[in-house]
Amino acid sequence: MAEPVVRRHFASDNWAGAHPQVMAALAAANHGHAASYGEDALTAHAIERIRALWGAPVSVFFVFNGTAANVLALASALRPYQGVICSDVAHLNVDECGAYERLAGGKLLTVPSPDGKLTPALVESRISNVGVVHSSQPAAISITQATEYGTIYTPGEIAALSRLAREHGLLLHMDGARLANAAATLGLSPGAFTTGAGVDILTLGGTKNGLIGGEAVIFADPDRAVDFGFVRKQGMQLASKMRFVAAQFEALLTDDLWLRSAAHANRMAQRLYHLVHGVPGVEVTQRVEANAVFARIPPRAIAPLQEHFNFLVWNERTSEVRWMTAFDTTTEDVDAFGSAITLEVGRATAGAGR
Amino acid sequence: MAEPVVRRHFASDNWAGAHPQVMAALAAANHGHAASYGEDALTAHAIERIRALWGAPVSVFFVFNGTAANVLALASALRPYQGVICSDVAHLNVDECGAYERLAGGKLLTVPSPDGKLTPALVESRISNVGVVHSSQPAAISITQATEYGTIYTPGEIAALSRLAREHGLLLHMDGARLANAAATLGLSPGAFTTGAGVDILTLGGTKNGLIGGEAVIFADPDRAVDFGFVRKQGMQLASKMRFVAAQFEALLTDDLWLRSAAHANRMAQRLYHLVHGVPGVEVTQRVEANAVFARIPPRAIAPLQEHFNFLVWNERTSEVRWMTAFDTTTEDVDAFGSAITLEVGRATAGAGR
Amino acid sequence: MAEPVVRRHFASDNWAGAHPQVMAALAAANHGHAASYGEDALTAHAIERIRALWGAPVSVFFVFNGTAANVLALASALRPYQGVICSDVAHLNVDECGAYERLAGGKLLTVPSPDGKLTPALVESRISNVGVVHSSQPAAISITQATEYGTIYTPGEIAALSRLAREHGLLLHMDGARLANAAATLGLSPGAFTTGAGVDILTLGGTKNGLIGGEAVIFADPDRAVDFGFVRKQGMQLASKMRFVAAQFEALLTDDLWLRSAAHANRMAQRLYHLVHGVPGVEVTQRVEANAVFARIPPRAIAPLQEHFNFLVWNERTSEVRWMTAFDTTTEDVDAFGSAITLEVGRATAGAGR
Amino acid sequence: MAEPVVRRHFASDNWAGAHPQVMAALAAANHGHAASYGEDALTAHAIERIRALWGAPVSVFFVFNGTAANVLALASALRPYQGVICSDVAHLNVDECGAYERLAGGKLLTVPSPDGKLTPALVESRISNVGVVHSSQPAAISITQATEYGTIYTPGEIAALSRLAREHGLLLHMDGARLANAAATLGLSPGAFTTGAGVDILTLGGTKNGLIGGEAVIFADPDRAVDFGFVRKQGMQLASKMRFVAAQFEALLTDDLWLRSAAHANRMAQRLYHLVHGVPGVEVTQRVEANAVFARIPPRAIAPLQEHFNFLVWNERTSEVRWMTAFDTTTEDVDAFGSAITLEVGRATAGAGR
Repeated sequence: MAEPVVRRHFASDNWAGAHPQVMAALAAANHGHAASYGEDALTAHAIERIRALWGAPVSVFFVFNGTAANVLALASALRPYQGVICSDVAHLNVDECGAYERLAGGKLLTVPSPDGKLTPALVESRISNVGVVHSSQPAAISITQATEYGTIYTPGEIAALSRLAREHGLLLHMDGARLANAAATLGLSPGAFTTGAGVDILTLGGTKNGLIGGEAVIFADPDRAVDFGFVRKQGMQLASKMRFVAAQFEALLTDDLWLRSAAHANRMAQRLYHLVHGVPGVEVTQRVEANAVFARIPPRAIAPLQEHFNFLVWNERTSEVRWMTAFDTTTEDVDAFGSAITLEVGRATAGAGR
Repeated sequence: MAEPVVRRHFASDNWAGAHPQVMAALAAANHGHAASYGEDALTAHAIERIRALWGAPVSVFFVFNGTAANVLALASALRPYQGVICSDVAHLNVDECGAYERLAGGKLLTVPSPDGKLTPALVESRISNVGVVHSSQPAAISITQATEYGTIYTPGEIAALSRLAREHGLLLHMDGARLANAAATLGLSPGAFTTGAGVDILTLGGTKNGLIGGEAVIFADPDRAVDFGFVRKQGMQLASKMRFVAAQFEALLTDDLWLRSAAHANRMAQRLYHLVHGVPGVEVTQRVEANAVFARIPPRAIAPLQEHFNFLVWNERTSEVRWMTAFDTTTEDVDAFGSAITLEVGRATAGAGR
Repeated sequence: MAEPVVRRHFASDNWAGAHPQVMAALAAANHGHAASYGEDALTAHAIERIRALWGAPVSVFFVFNGTAANVLALASALRPYQGVICSDVAHLNVDECGAYERLAGGKLLTVPSPDGKLTPALVESRISNVGVVHSSQPAAISITQATEYGTIYTPGEIAALSRLAREHGLLLHMDGARLANAAATLGLSPGAFTTGAGVDILTLGGTKNGLIGGEAVIFADPDRAVDFGFVRKQGMQLASKMRFVAAQFEALLTDDLWLRSAAHANRMAQRLYHLVHGVPGVEVTQRVEANAVFARIPPRAIAPLQEHFNFLVWNERTSEVRWMTAFDTTTEDVDAFGSAITLEVGRATAGAGR
Repeated sequence: MAEPVVRRHFASDNWAGAHPQVMAALAAANHGHAASYGEDALTAHAIERIRALWGAPVSVFFVFNGTAANVLALASALRPYQGVICSDVAHLNVDECGAYERLAGGKLLTVPSPDGKLTPALVESRISNVGVVHSSQPAAISITQATEYGTIYTPGEIAALSRLAREHGLLLHMDGARLANAAATLGLSPGAFTTGAGVDILTLGGTKNGLIGGEAVIFADPDRAVDFGFVRKQGMQLASKMRFVAAQFEALLTDDLWLRSAAHANRMAQRLYHLVHGVPGVEVTQRVEANAVFARIPPRAIAPLQEHFNFLVWNERTSEVRWMTAFDTTTEDVDAFGSAITLEVGRATAGAGR
């Protein structure tokens, strides 16, 4: 073989690069001088695009990455003595190195969640000691859509959480780093299952959906957003050349690129799921509703598989792995990976039987 | 005239876009999957390029912007009860909305500095109450090179501050958002007047020198950098698609683009200075050593000038303005602006005389 | 009955006042002027008394209360990106309103612990992702002695945790708000089961043992304490009239008052335990090793009992209550309370049976 | 002489102990069990006493010390991106080791103030960049009454600052660690020159006025105080045995002890002033309006004087010293000190003349 075959990995959707249309938009935005710090026309226009997509006068702010989108949104809305109820596998809790605790100075009130989703009952288990000064006061619920396990909240589930939130005076926050994947699965406009379902603050993720980098923080109620500009600046997340973040979002929102990219990634995950879920030795552990397949496979199959395909060992102890697709994953990638899984798990299983 | 003439402004070097070579490097980096969070080959290579330029085994970390570069570098090196001695016009003090106070939880020990530069005597004026628990303990000196006033520290001045720092057990930090402009003026390799002159931690700025966004934090002593990776992540500044930050630096360091761009911007500032410094009514207030001209002009000249050229009113009370050039400022831009200044200041002066 | 009988409650040992010897020491210390902020002779002497009791050159600092003792000790020893492994019922986690998160800016890595104690296995369950920048880095273990459930670590259990801590480079911290109660039960000098067993930093509690207020933070290694003076001041816990905190500790350490008071409180808890543990309807839920009895009683018994004796409903859902004794609890108090419990639980049980 | 004469020093009013009536109140409060954390009757009563003294339904919270009173009051009222305008000699700025920056995460906007007092013009010099996200937003004015220089704001001066504050939407905070000294000089009820003159939040100091320790934070508007209970707890300043703080305030407010003690201290400072202000070589540098005398004396007089009387060298460079009286300073103390000053300054001056 003359040239190595270029293959995409299944490590994370942030291993993918940028969509060509995004890259083209960046180049097009590189024209002359523009006001810095988001005072430019491109930024205003991209914000209008998001408002139009939402069909509502939401407030929109761009930040560099998902960690900041979560932390600053919640820090702007809460006081340090308040707490955020979230799943114990929430990115906010386990993948941000304590950024929330440092920036917000507050506590995350975690609940174990086998599928990454919160329910009213799980949330209620952390609503206690209200008004008692010794305890962090529950003040927000943070959910991830699609979740860290690739599962998805239905609009009804979100509305139920929202009702609970209203009842207890809690804010409902959504980490939407993979909101597009949820939208593609649900077949709904993003407003319908976010602000329309009672979500107060959310992220519209870009980085994991084909940008080189950028996230949008969206407030349902502009009154709640009045000081976010200061929080973003003090939080070190105000881009001086904002037009280059905005241009990416502009591209993402043109011709439904955001939705098509996510739908494609989801289909690739479905394809992989269908290739492997009947294979002896492969136990798919989560519903495949977005762009990830979680599975338990024999430990000895992992290393051979990783020789050619990078992916994450989610839980070493239980030999659970995460296979994740992206906007640029091809059917050839999936088929090659599916075959490799079948082969290596087969070998490992056979070996285990001897 | 059928088309409007595209002109560059004199507002800030961050109003400029990206250098075409930087944009080309971004496009070239957009190829297949790459490990995220800086574990990719491009990032490793860009770091090596910086080490080679420095001629020393410095530790290098990329972050999104200059505020974060300053704040996280200092926060990683200090404890909250320690203080940072800096000029009262330091970006760290006046342009970051209290980011240092929030992230580091410590105090900035400011000294008035008419030209933006610290001297050993100015620094010593803030070294007091050492060992006294009631006082923030001086633990670092932070200087800006080139300064916020476009002035430049000589290697000798930096070495003198470094000696003082060593004497008192202080760290020497340099905000090098415009380090390239200083290097161009000094005609020295960057190592010579930074780590080589006793600077412990510094920023190599990219954003203001033709990147779409990105700064490098450089530690002279790798031992001091061992936990910066955690500080950066907890500080919400770890880019997942790091290759796109690295690619920009790679381009910047290729064929001395960083130096050529800065030298050009400096020349444009010199050109502007020579056009206006003899004009009656224009009082240039700072030495023009980098890419900025500070001047007092008649208040009534400001509005007419700003109709065509955006620039900053630095001090409304004293009618001091800042005119800043960038890598893409052309001689035509400068000449047109110089003429406009001459014209409008002349009108204002004449008017004032009536 | 001419006068109401004065009875002590079973709410908390902090409902008790000060021991008469403590009050006498306060009055004796109130003589002339003394250097403020701990520079006085009384403070120096009280510190020496603690060193003598420990039989080691430990570093000692007084603070106002237990929350500060925990938070400042850990905050001084750790960086914000590091985490503290502790029980989910640790005072540090549930009773300090997020003070650790706010002051230290770091994360508590909690583990469920049915008896309030950590074990090496429980601790190991939270040691993961070491060196991975996305995760709070485990850097300390915090245990409470006696625990929030009134249980006690043996020296062997502490040594085992210490070995694990050493192995993983973790610090071992002990919340000793009720250290005296543990010492009384163990029959050991406090050094033997704290610094002598590998504890690096601990609190010697005073408030819950008959002071009007005051706690001592003790560092096994003075090198680790070099900046605690600054942390205490910045943490707003440096008393100006420190002699009045020191005088209380001086009294507490004279003639073993600390130990006698705690031993008495423990005996009162044992007496209560023996009075109620066989009563039908009373299920003692924790070993009674210090000055607390935890029990499940019929819900309907709670209100009648609380008419005369204040105590804490620990868990409303499971109808678990906490009965706590103090240095001033009398046998008459206990006997009266024991009788009331027998009576009201009997009534409630009978009622339930009908 | 058989016994050494007991003399009071002139170091600080916090070198004094507690007033005998305060000590008696502590002893009296030490009776049986009382609800902890301020839920007791004594605390409720002491709060009512303060409300009665103010003649207004103010909200009152006790904390341990003055640093906490300042920091928590301001931290509860502001967001981290906001700034506090204060004098550069404010205790908040120079004597709290950066506690405000750490707890509140915000910036102090200092102005040089030769007599420790702010004026509308000084405050206005720091009101800039309002609405600009790059700058800490001025949100409060903090003044000290009596100031760190022993000077006093008149009600008119406070009202002028209050008008300015209202105009710009700023909060007016008063560090009243020595509020009693100001009240004694002004001859006004404390409400008249605090909440009645537009102060929003203040401290009523106790520690420097004869308590063993304790300060009251007072909010003019109870609506602004709704979450201070949480802020105090998270800020580690909630005393469990609160009755012992409350009892001290109860004593302080009984029979005007607070006012009589402060008036006495003020008279002692006046007496000292009159003894020394005409002495050649003594230059009194501040108006003596409370309980401190600031003076420049010959450097060589300092050491001999300090052999018998402790006092503070305020500024080594200018040889400025601070002499401070307390509730227990006697006329004999003052006279002896006055004579010693006359003698030693005379010697030093004579020596200088040779």
